[in-house]
Amino acid sequence: MTRPADVVRILGVDPGLTRCGIAVVDVDARRRAALVHVEVVGTPPGTSLDQRLLRIDEAVTRILACHRPDRAAVERMFANNNTPTVLGTAQAAGVAIAAAARAGIPVGLHTPSEVKAAVTGHGDAGKEQVTTMVTRILRLDAPPRPADAADALALAIAHGWRGTALGHAAGQTGMDTADMASRAGRSHSAARVPLPTRAGEMTAAQRAWLAAERSTGGRRR
Amino acid sequence: MTRPADVVRILGVDPGLTRCGIAVVDVDARRRAALVHVEVVGTPPGTSLDQRLLRIDEAVTRILACHRPDRAAVERMFANNNTPTVLGTAQAAGVAIAAAARAGIPVGLHTPSEVKAAVTGHGDAGKEQVTTMVTRILRLDAPPRPADAADALALAIAHGWRGTALGHAAGQTGMDTADMASRAGRSHSAARVPLPTRAGEMTAAQRAWLAAERSTGGRRR
Repeated sequence: MTRPADVVRILGVDPGLTRCGIAVVDVDARRRAALVHVEVVGTPPGTSLDQRLLRIDEAVTRILACHRPDRAAVERMFANNNTPTVLGTAQAAGVAIAAAARAGIPVGLHTPSEVKAAVTGHGDAGKEQVTTMVTRILRLDAPPRPADAADALALAIAHGWRGTALGHAAGQTGMDTADMASRAGRSHSAARVPLPTRAGEMTAAQRAWLAAERSTGGRRR
Repeated sequence: MTRPADVVRILGVDPGLTRCGIAVVDVDARRRAALVHVEVVGTPPGTSLDQRLLRIDEAVTRILACHRPDRAAVERMFANNNTPTVLGTAQAAGVAIAAAARAGIPVGLHTPSEVKAAVTGHGDAGKEQVTTMVTRILRLDAPPRPADAADALALAIAHGWRGTALGHAAGQTGMDTADMASRAGRSHSAARVPLPTRAGEMTAAQRAWLAAERSTGGRRR
């Protein structure tokens, strides 16, 4: 249970009733990220809604108790999402957020664009790009599958990067997201790359994140 | 804690982040309904989403532990609802459903039209009509306020009526909803009104419920 003082452990949840990605990642002060746990839980569409939500509730609660993350990150949703699954996804997200809140840890919300910008440098990156970058960032032997696992990991990494180094409080502006994607490809030497300290030194990834953040305007439901 | 064998205790939740109505009602085999508990919980819109959902989770969990209902009923939502609050309402509903599932009780979902049809005889009844009928059905001295309290009570009553008498299993067709609204106005003598047993004897309330049920087609998210 003891972790180095400079390590922040992050729970990331990519919500869904059929496939819910749940990841735990450690991020240190030098922005090195390490896989702790990842799994995808869910139930077939024909299952009753109460049993589907219970399944997610139990899985998130179990992983919280087992790995004791310091913070959680869950996908932020928008009402203009008109996919048929949006309400089920919102309910799954609500259950995951409440489980983290019950465990007493702060919960951050990030849009898919923010997460993609953080790990790939592009807010409109495809699923394969996200999976490739997550594999490199975490120095995994094989890409995490299915995509829901990679998305949950990306969410945890993005939240961890956001909350370390330049600004240690989650919830600050996009300025503290640093050059995440650029260093992901050379993760073992990441610690030696000096962190940018002025706005003019922002990397493409930082600018992408900042743009994604500004476009959402910190809206809350 | 001991209740007569013919009494079913129902939790009804009208979900919402700002105002979440939570009601507990006892319904006996003669369809008499009695108030056990009702409250409205919530948080101001500026509160963080995790604390808003936690508030609902804690309230529903506390009421489940305190009053030990046999079943729960939560509002069924549809994706074509485009109000700005729909996602927050879905998340609140998800948290309430998961809390009931954790407590091991079955959860029924009903649309507002089904509930209005059950307690007033009209699927498109207004909030005041629902409040008036709930006040009469439960023989209350004053109408429950705010409307969220009345809506949660109506949901619990409708679910209890649906699951008693003609068919004792929740989840059957609308045929087991009986002449709920008509007897509500004379609740003390309700037990003496013979229950209809053939389709041809359906009351206006039964027909309204059946139409509402058919229009939703038992869809699940």
